[in-house]
Amino acid sequence: MENKNYIYLDNASSTKTDDRVIEEMMPFIRDFYGNPSSIHQAGADSREGLEKARIRVAGLVDANSEEIYFTSCGTESNNFALNGIMEANQNKGRHLITSEIEHLSILNPIKELKKKGFEATIVPVDNEGFVSAQAVKKAIRPDTTLISIMQANNEIGTIQKIKEISDIAKAAGIIMHSDGVATAGIIPSGVNELGVDAFSFTSQQMYGPKGAAALYIRKGTKIKPLILGGVQERGRRAGTENIPAIVGFGKACEIAKLEMEENFHMIIKLRSRLIKGIMENIKEITLNGSMENRLPGNVHISFEYIEGESIVLFLNMAGITVATGSSCASQALKVSHVCTSIGLGQATAQGSILFSIGRYNTETDIDKVIELLPPIIEKLRKMSPLYKG
Amino acid sequence: MENKNYIYLDNASSTKTDDRVIEEMMPFIRDFYGNPSSIHQAGADSREGLEKARIRVAGLVDANSEEIYFTSCGTESNNFALNGIMEANQNKGRHLITSEIEHLSILNPIKELKKKGFEATIVPVDNEGFVSAQAVKKAIRPDTTLISIMQANNEIGTIQKIKEISDIAKAAGIIMHSDGVATAGIIPSGVNELGVDAFSFTSQQMYGPKGAAALYIRKGTKIKPLILGGVQERGRRAGTENIPAIVGFGKACEIAKLEMEENFHMIIKLRSRLIKGIMENIKEITLNGSMENRLPGNVHISFEYIEGESIVLFLNMAGITVATGSSCASQALKVSHVCTSIGLGQATAQGSILFSIGRYNTETDIDKVIELLPPIIEKLRKMSPLYKG
Repeated sequence: MENKNYIYLDNASSTKTDDRVIEEMMPFIRDFYGNPSSIHQAGADSREGLEKARIRVAGLVDANSEEIYFTSCGTESNNFALNGIMEANQNKGRHLITSEIEHLSILNPIKELKKKGFEATIVPVDNEGFVSAQAVKKAIRPDTTLISIMQANNEIGTIQKIKEISDIAKAAGIIMHSDGVATAGIIPSGVNELGVDAFSFTSQQMYGPKGAAALYIRKGTKIKPLILGGVQERGRRAGTENIPAIVGFGKACEIAKLEMEENFHMIIKLRSRLIKGIMENIKEITLNGSMENRLPGNVHISFEYIEGESIVLFLNMAGITVATGSSCASQALKVSHVCTSIGLGQATAQGSILFSIGRYNTETDIDKVIELLPPIIEKLRKMSPLYKG
Repeated sequence: MENKNYIYLDNASSTKTDDRVIEEMMPFIRDFYGNPSSIHQAGADSREGLEKARIRVAGLVDANSEEIYFTSCGTESNNFALNGIMEANQNKGRHLITSEIEHLSILNPIKELKKKGFEATIVPVDNEGFVSAQAVKKAIRPDTTLISIMQANNEIGTIQKIKEISDIAKAAGIIMHSDGVATAGIIPSGVNELGVDAFSFTSQQMYGPKGAAALYIRKGTKIKPLILGGVQERGRRAGTENIPAIVGFGKACEIAKLEMEENFHMIIKLRSRLIKGIMENIKEITLNGSMENRLPGNVHISFEYIEGESIVLFLNMAGITVATGSSCASQALKVSHVCTSIGLGQATAQGSILFSIGRYNTETDIDKVIELLPPIIEKLRKMSPLYKG
């Protein structure tokens, strides 16, 4: 097995770990292996890394470090937020509001909560993927305890107007959570700017390592732990902390904060180049999502008459790495619920590809895609019984 | 911050990661960052690492690789086992049996299960920490669904006669789980030899990295996921897999299996040397646990008249790293429930120290402890109002 040096345009699934992050992690991989709960020097060394990371992670989202709880992944953060907030605040009510295009780590725990007697209103989105603040407002009931709306969708890239929704939540005394897995480190995600009480985010989407994520919980917000045992994370998440990954996550947050603006503009430029190149060279395609409020690296396109999976595989053979649907849906081989929610037909949804540009991409990468993609689409369409071309 | 080159005798809390393990991990930290759920080459590279690790991890416990589910830590594995088995099998009954000296990642989830209407019988142990198979048998009710007894205790090192208990479980048609966090990779833990249907174990206690652990679930045993979202781990544990840590865990399991016997004998020899040295040089002490069925690296001693925490701190200043009580109890600053369960009085329990020897320790390390410990104990005792000298 060797590194294939492919052009990597699947940054929404997972990002390359920054070399500066790896450098920061290495002492904790090799030398500082103590358990941070221990009172001796080896424990103190690990604890120092842990708490330094907590400050950096908090810094990225303008939180206090004591409001940051480390978890193992974005999915765990979302499960923790939903279950924990609903269970801890059920004296207020057992109803929550979310949207149709949330990640499965939100929608699937809600299915379980419903089996336990909790209730959920799942608001639809428009054809650009926007949740209407008015629709959320209308869904509020006296027993509504939580509103959970993602900051941006991981598939189609639509960035929600979270502040409009959180203002409504605040006015109604409802806890507001946002899934920031696709946004933290990529666009500004200050928890006060967003007006959220809980915020999930992860390392591996911002050039940090896999194995570390966080849940921000505003001071005073009640939440029950998901994983019980020792008193790590002030009793809210048991289990020995994954120090090397957490240290890397901290460094990734520090870098993301410092370099966000520069990266944002660089990536937006590449995105425009890619969209223009594809639009000019391939017919019968649709760019999904919003042009105005869109994640900088996101290019989600439906190609009529063909299947996304074939495009991924042909591009892969050409040395280009892209995704079909969401990273979580791909092995399930189902049409993404997000594509359905924005009104794409089954066939169109199946022909969708997500190019996600990251900070290691170059103009050369984009030009290579623009060169290689059209003949692949042409070839696949000629093989398709649906294409009359 | 620099590595202090201390003598590390806290291997029950966390172990140094083997250099061969780190070497195996590095390509997955640096180059193979794809999401294993993706169908392109970058995904395939990660998936290859993941599945190779699964085979190695399964190999350590004589399981099939499709019976291994990766989690983020031993605590998560234990939570997953308890909640998942009880929830999924409640049509059979809502009662479980466990012991008083289980880890908090077993006992605390049980407290939560009880709030949800499940019931538990918690059997006591004798003064060496043994669970009586007959006591377990007596506790069985028609609605007993699960028996969970740890293979060895992480504090006092007592190795249970799991097969006697699992035979009883099997005869009664009850699911048998064992927490193997303290044993896997250290002593043989074949799931068929043990007769268990579920088995928790972790990487960081066997010279692997933090951030990866596993739950073995025997084919056909029903279990509900703890963390929901995508279809990773065949739908039983959602969230992007921590590939570097899992790859490291795999290598650690491979090494542990090959070198277990050699390490066992080496460590037992050091243990005998340490016990003898301490016993001959310090009075009014008790070696807790069992001499016959004891983890090879475990030396758990109560020193009368003084507090364990002071011993840890004084030894720490002398460059020697040991633990007081369990790694999870230490920050909670409570007397370990394990010490209480084997009948130690409050004062004696508080004076307990766990020296846990690992494969990087040497005779020189042990001799240094034997040299430095007696004057520390003497000094502390002289400061103690309880000591009459």
